[in-house]
Amino acid sequence: METKQILERRVNLDYSSGMPVDPEVFEAMKPYFIEKYGNPSSLHYLGAEARKALEDAYVEVGGLIGVELPDREICFTSGATESNNLAIKGVALRNRKKGDHVVISAIEHISVINTTKYLQRLGFRVTKVPVDSYGTVDVKVFESSLTQGTVLASITYANNEIGTIQPIKEIGRIAKEKGIPLHVDGTAAVGKVPINVDEEHIDLLTVSSNDMYGPKGVGALYIREGTLVEPIIHGGGQQRGLRSGSENMPGIVGIGKASELTKSRMPEERKYLETLRDRLSKGILNSAGEIYLHGHPTHRLPSNTVVRIFGVEGESVIMELDRRGVAASTGSACASKNLEPSHVLAAIGLNEIERHGVIQFTLSRLNTKEHVDYVLSVLPEITKKLRDLSPVWKFRDRLPELYKPHQHESHE
Amino acid sequence: METKQILERRVNLDYSSGMPVDPEVFEAMKPYFIEKYGNPSSLHYLGAEARKALEDAYVEVGGLIGVELPDREICFTSGATESNNLAIKGVALRNRKKGDHVVISAIEHISVINTTKYLQRLGFRVTKVPVDSYGTVDVKVFESSLTQGTVLASITYANNEIGTIQPIKEIGRIAKEKGIPLHVDGTAAVGKVPINVDEEHIDLLTVSSNDMYGPKGVGALYIREGTLVEPIIHGGGQQRGLRSGSENMPGIVGIGKASELTKSRMPEERKYLETLRDRLSKGILNSAGEIYLHGHPTHRLPSNTVVRIFGVEGESVIMELDRRGVAASTGSACASKNLEPSHVLAAIGLNEIERHGVIQFTLSRLNTKEHVDYVLSVLPEITKKLRDLSPVWKFRDRLPELYKPHQHESHE
Repeated sequence: METKQILERRVNLDYSSGMPVDPEVFEAMKPYFIEKYGNPSSLHYLGAEARKALEDAYVEVGGLIGVELPDREICFTSGATESNNLAIKGVALRNRKKGDHVVISAIEHISVINTTKYLQRLGFRVTKVPVDSYGTVDVKVFESSLTQGTVLASITYANNEIGTIQPIKEIGRIAKEKGIPLHVDGTAAVGKVPINVDEEHIDLLTVSSNDMYGPKGVGALYIREGTLVEPIIHGGGQQRGLRSGSENMPGIVGIGKASELTKSRMPEERKYLETLRDRLSKGILNSAGEIYLHGHPTHRLPSNTVVRIFGVEGESVIMELDRRGVAASTGSACASKNLEPSHVLAAIGLNEIERHGVIQFTLSRLNTKEHVDYVLSVLPEITKKLRDLSPVWKFRDRLPELYKPHQHESHE
Repeated sequence: METKQILERRVNLDYSSGMPVDPEVFEAMKPYFIEKYGNPSSLHYLGAEARKALEDAYVEVGGLIGVELPDREICFTSGATESNNLAIKGVALRNRKKGDHVVISAIEHISVINTTKYLQRLGFRVTKVPVDSYGTVDVKVFESSLTQGTVLASITYANNEIGTIQPIKEIGRIAKEKGIPLHVDGTAAVGKVPINVDEEHIDLLTVSSNDMYGPKGVGALYIREGTLVEPIIHGGGQQRGLRSGSENMPGIVGIGKASELTKSRMPEERKYLETLRDRLSKGILNSAGEIYLHGHPTHRLPSNTVVRIFGVEGESVIMELDRRGVAASTGSACASKNLEPSHVLAAIGLNEIERHGVIQFTLSRLNTKEHVDYVLSVLPEITKKLRDLSPVWKFRDRLPELYKPHQHESHE
């Protein structure tokens, strides 16, 4: 029976680690592989065709996030990680004479964390603003961490693991008042919730293509005009000198089309995902005792459900789900190689034992009510099986404090 | 008649600025956009599929250039420009304690030149080894330019504009004897002529995907095991920590397939291109007087023909050719934005006037004898028309020395 399920069923609830390209996006990209293979820098007929496509893509991506001057403020990169690197190193290194201090939050993506670690090796100081148990940045601490020598603040729009959305408008207002450029990592948020760079006072915004059903291998960075940025990839001076290298035209056409489609579909898709997500969250909470939800109860991405099942290892749950054809995750695939629980879970106050119990589900528009119900149908047997084997569960009444379930981060 | 030609005919002889993807390569990539969209870092079924594809691509790219340990020595990037940046900044910055000196040639690609200019701003010293009138690096000067403080040498395998192939094996032997890592920009050469990193003592080799009918937006860098490299894009530690960011799987599958196909097709394609190229070169030389070929007569890429028509501007020839449906170039599209003639043409000894007269044709397997013959059929009328308008041509017997045609770089 179990083998039959594996063969018949594939339910992906781990879309944050990779998304399929929207078929309409793929159709838009297709001609740029074989027929329209020109280089926007060429002066002949093939170049003109490519230039037009490049300019259209600037407008489409800009339109999704409220950019007024897309051809002067959007820069295409190879993906969100490069965009984060370009924003952070670019602003910090270019403005080094003004100061050597960078402010981030404690729950930034690893590409932000490790980029600032690199800056630390070059002599920069980095302040990490803490978050509460919901994963919300402490705005007061953020404000007080900005000093004379601060050259950049970088705060994620929404955390990709626990889904919590930050009060970016307030953060942006504070940064603007102090004259400090604000970079926002929008990887997990752009296309899922409405974002406007002007209204939210964002100076640099990372846009992921694949996270909105666009192709992998391309991303964008919004850079407010007048923001000084040192390139991280030097060469032919493409894209106003900000990012050299012949433009990846199929990818650029893809992120453009994905932006256009996302803009029109977002309101409906958001509602659809929220309904599915709430069904999943409530179903899991009711499937057994001592199960907890993480992240903010309302200010959160429509696509994320993060749970912790007391007494079992998240890793074991993932493996049992995988045997039943369900893909889920213990955290960011970007950091899953080292098998260490994420810094994000530590930042919201989970102790070491608790961090190992977290399971993350990320939904896409390809998920259905049936997918959710299938997961809810197999989870109780998994929980029971693993708890029956778990000494932590067996002796839960006699555990030292560290092993006991904490209630503070739940929000039932 | 002329309008009819424009509408009916499109002859691309500027493939160095962009290549169409091989239909077989595109077929191999296709499933990775919509169905096989997994992330190699994921632990579930989608991850396993992606990991296998990533490992296969390492082997395929490695196989093209004689790499023994492809899964430890190949790193995928977003393209040749990023590969050049990673190799040069990566080695120079990581080994800064050992020295602050980098050696390049005078005819490197602009992505190498501008990357070393960035290093100069960080305090590095850069020596440019001169070339002769064929564009061949002076090996003696190369040898004497390597000093105690030299941390890297970077020499192109073949120049993308004039097509001259460098004596890399000899250069590699010298660098190896002195214990200095050698980076080779193989963008224009990999896939066109056989290259073996071990036999030619290459420590880092830039591989372009699009230049061998693979997709844009992906490239590779061979890094000999033991070579210390600082990443330029930090994050999740993908690809052994050398290049963070979720892998661009369709692109990686594409460069893998392109490498595999290129390896088997190279001998035949090389002969085919050489025959076409020689037909084009000879035809142009015989089409009017005072026309010169540039680059090395024999040690050159099979795909490049570079000519100079005395008395006319290269730019005007390109425009006239474009009106007749022919795409050609005055030099690298990577640097065509500023409309300045290339540093490569200065390095081979052309004066300012001469540099403006250069026209570059780059062939691909999609070109035919008919394409070449069409260009040869329209070029005489273009030459005549432009020379009739040219004061330089009209008064050629009374010109000061600077304006006179130089013969030294010709190799009829």
